[in-house]
Amino acid sequence: EDTFKLSEHPHKRYNILTGEWVLVAPHRTKRPWQGKVEAEAANNRPEYDPACYLCPGNKRSDGSQNPAYTKSYSFINDFSSLLQDTPVGKTDIGGLLKAESQSGICKVISFSPRHDLTLPELSLEELAGVIDIWIAEYRELSQHSFIKYIQIFENKGDIMGCSNPHPHGQIWAQSSVPVEVEKETLKQKEHYLKNRSGLLADYLKIELEQRERIVFENNDFVALVPFWAIWPYETMLISKRHVKDVTEFTNHEKASLAEALKKLTTLYDNLFKTSFPYSAGMHQAPVNDGEHPEWHWHMHFYPPLLRSATVKKFMVGYELLANAQRDITPEFAAAQLRQQSDIHYKTQA
Amino acid sequence: EDTFKLSEHPHKRYNILTGEWVLVAPHRTKRPWQGKVEAEAANNRPEYDPACYLCPGNKRSDGSQNPAYTKSYSFINDFSSLLQDTPVGKTDIGGLLKAESQSGICKVISFSPRHDLTLPELSLEELAGVIDIWIAEYRELSQHSFIKYIQIFENKGDIMGCSNPHPHGQIWAQSSVPVEVEKETLKQKEHYLKNRSGLLADYLKIELEQRERIVFENNDFVALVPFWAIWPYETMLISKRHVKDVTEFTNHEKASLAEALKKLTTLYDNLFKTSFPYSAGMHQAPVNDGEHPEWHWHMHFYPPLLRSATVKKFMVGYELLANAQRDITPEFAAAQLRQQSDIHYKTQA
Ligand SMILES: O=P(O)(O)O[C@H]1O[C@H](CO)[C@@H](O)[C@H](O)[C@H]1O
Ligand SMILES: O=P(O)(O)O[C@H]1O[C@H](CO)[C@@H](O)[C@H](O)[C@H]1O
Repeated sequence: EDTFKLSEHPHKRYNILTGEWVLVAPHRTKRPWQGKVEAEAANNRPEYDPACYLCPGNKRSDGSQNPAYTKSYSFINDFSSLLQDTPVGKTDIGGLLKAESQSGICKVISFSPRHDLTLPELSLEELAGVIDIWIAEYRELSQHSFIKYIQIFENKGDIMGCSNPHPHGQIWAQSSVPVEVEKETLKQKEHYLKNRSGLLADYLKIELEQRERIVFENNDFVALVPFWAIWPYETMLISKRHVKDVTEFTNHEKASLAEALKKLTTLYDNLFKTSFPYSAGMHQAPVNDGEHPEWHWHMHFYPPLLRSATVKKFMVGYELLANAQRDITPEFAAAQLRQQSDIHYKTQA
Repeated sequence: EDTFKLSEHPHKRYNILTGEWVLVAPHRTKRPWQGKVEAEAANNRPEYDPACYLCPGNKRSDGSQNPAYTKSYSFINDFSSLLQDTPVGKTDIGGLLKAESQSGICKVISFSPRHDLTLPELSLEELAGVIDIWIAEYRELSQHSFIKYIQIFENKGDIMGCSNPHPHGQIWAQSSVPVEVEKETLKQKEHYLKNRSGLLADYLKIELEQRERIVFENNDFVALVPFWAIWPYETMLISKRHVKDVTEFTNHEKASLAEALKKLTTLYDNLFKTSFPYSAGMHQAPVNDGEHPEWHWHMHFYPPLLRSATVKKFMVGYELLANAQRDITPEFAAAQLRQQSDIHYKTQA
């Protein structure tokens, strides 16, 4: 009689942060791929591009000019989705047509004056500069009392809708707590009230014992493929210390975070020898909203590639209508990533 | 003083079927698009392709041969995600690492023997044949008492992960109710218990009065852009009668559904004069799970295109990490679709 094995049999796994399940079909990568093949990311960008609105000294679409910045640099998004002066209002027709106005502030952060680099190619000092600007922005944006949540993220690669290859991220700060963060708040709160301990701290303990899904750890951070990962090579960076947001990190932790970011993005690039596309972002406690002792800072990486630099995972019919679904197991993905060199393939001899 | 307008100001809208919100940024389409441009769908397929595993008489990858079918035709997916003989089992480590085996049956439905056609190009009789096979499969799959939900869907276009352009859809039937369907069951049940009326029936009444988001209606079905649509040209087909699944449709309703499918997919193709990609699928009551008087059959269409045949909406960083977000309003999208001819652009003189 066959017994149930996570490595072999179709199953579902529970996401402790959202309360939702993901379907895992480990046997499914055997199917041949006859579908869409993506173009590989171009790899020949100049250090400076006169047509780029992010390069130092260049004109932006609102007519202003970037300073001749030498580290990372942030400014208000010229095409912000959320605006500060949105009139307050509501609609509610029979509880069935409900809408509420939403205001906010959207920022763009250029990670480097260099047009041709990406996060894994920055030095640890340059990465520390990016972390400093995230912290400064977080502090400043939370000064606005109408701001309830600050989403820091990066879309990397044109396959992830990134419209400019200059290394940059974004921050969307807004007047309510977005859906995905609300789910994580709820689940962390439930666990905290029940156990008087952090959900992610307790989870980390098990992962650090089992080690199957750990990609690496350093003094202050753990990179792992979560048990419930949806994207093929999805990972999380979790701080070992239970802190509620990025402003609480010590200098030592900031240096560890720079190191972890460099290492994780290098492993990613090395996996398929390509500039690895992803959307990544931090999840942290809502702001101007009382204490959140349940909240444990972490960062999600959602990369779309499945089989190679040109074949991605499509989250489509079944996934959109029914349930998130993945083909390789999280354990397999973690092993693949662990196996990569932490020297970037472009600089390997 | 400016007053809040849904057509102008950033806001969020409530999805009555899932209980989640979507962010709407109506002013945002003004930004220039410098990002990824998709290849247009090829448009020169032969009527019969000897290399296609779906064409009549051809070999499949499991070694079997398709019959010389002349209408629509279904068979077990050679690369099924869900299998019937999965051993039953569970894992639970401290409530934090939870998994359960999942079994099911996956089917492929070829919509037509013709390799070169798509749904809007089929005749009403041929579409009625597709509906008949959906009904027959639904009935047959629900005979298996371990099956709890049957997801009927179509991924159309390689941009939606469809790996074979031969017109076809899929059915994934499985041993538990998937996440998205669970959400809709919950919300419909809440409404039904409170009001003794159907959530979607009550919603339809308001939409048919307001007419702003209606794309068209016929005797038995309404096509509309839901108030809370996420994808730019997302629509729903809703039956006017409160029925819980596709097996309950009368002959008259089946003919109306064929008509509605042909019209909606024709409007889509005409919008950007391209074979319009989407993932579409029915939502209906779970099976082998008691009565579900709250459940109202409907079909969602999730198309990715935003601005043209080659520029899609990317659901990436902010959307994955924080909140679904759309750029054009549902009212604008409905007006655009309403405006299209219902004669397919390929056959227009
Ligand atoms: O089953 P197919 O057509 O090979 O695959 C397609 O649809 C599936 C169900 O939505 C997805 O999981 C795959 O990512 C997609 O490529
Ligand atoms: O803001 P950008 O980089 O122009 O746009 C990109 O990121 C946004 C936030 O995730 C998405 O809404 C867009 O679809 C995507 O193209």
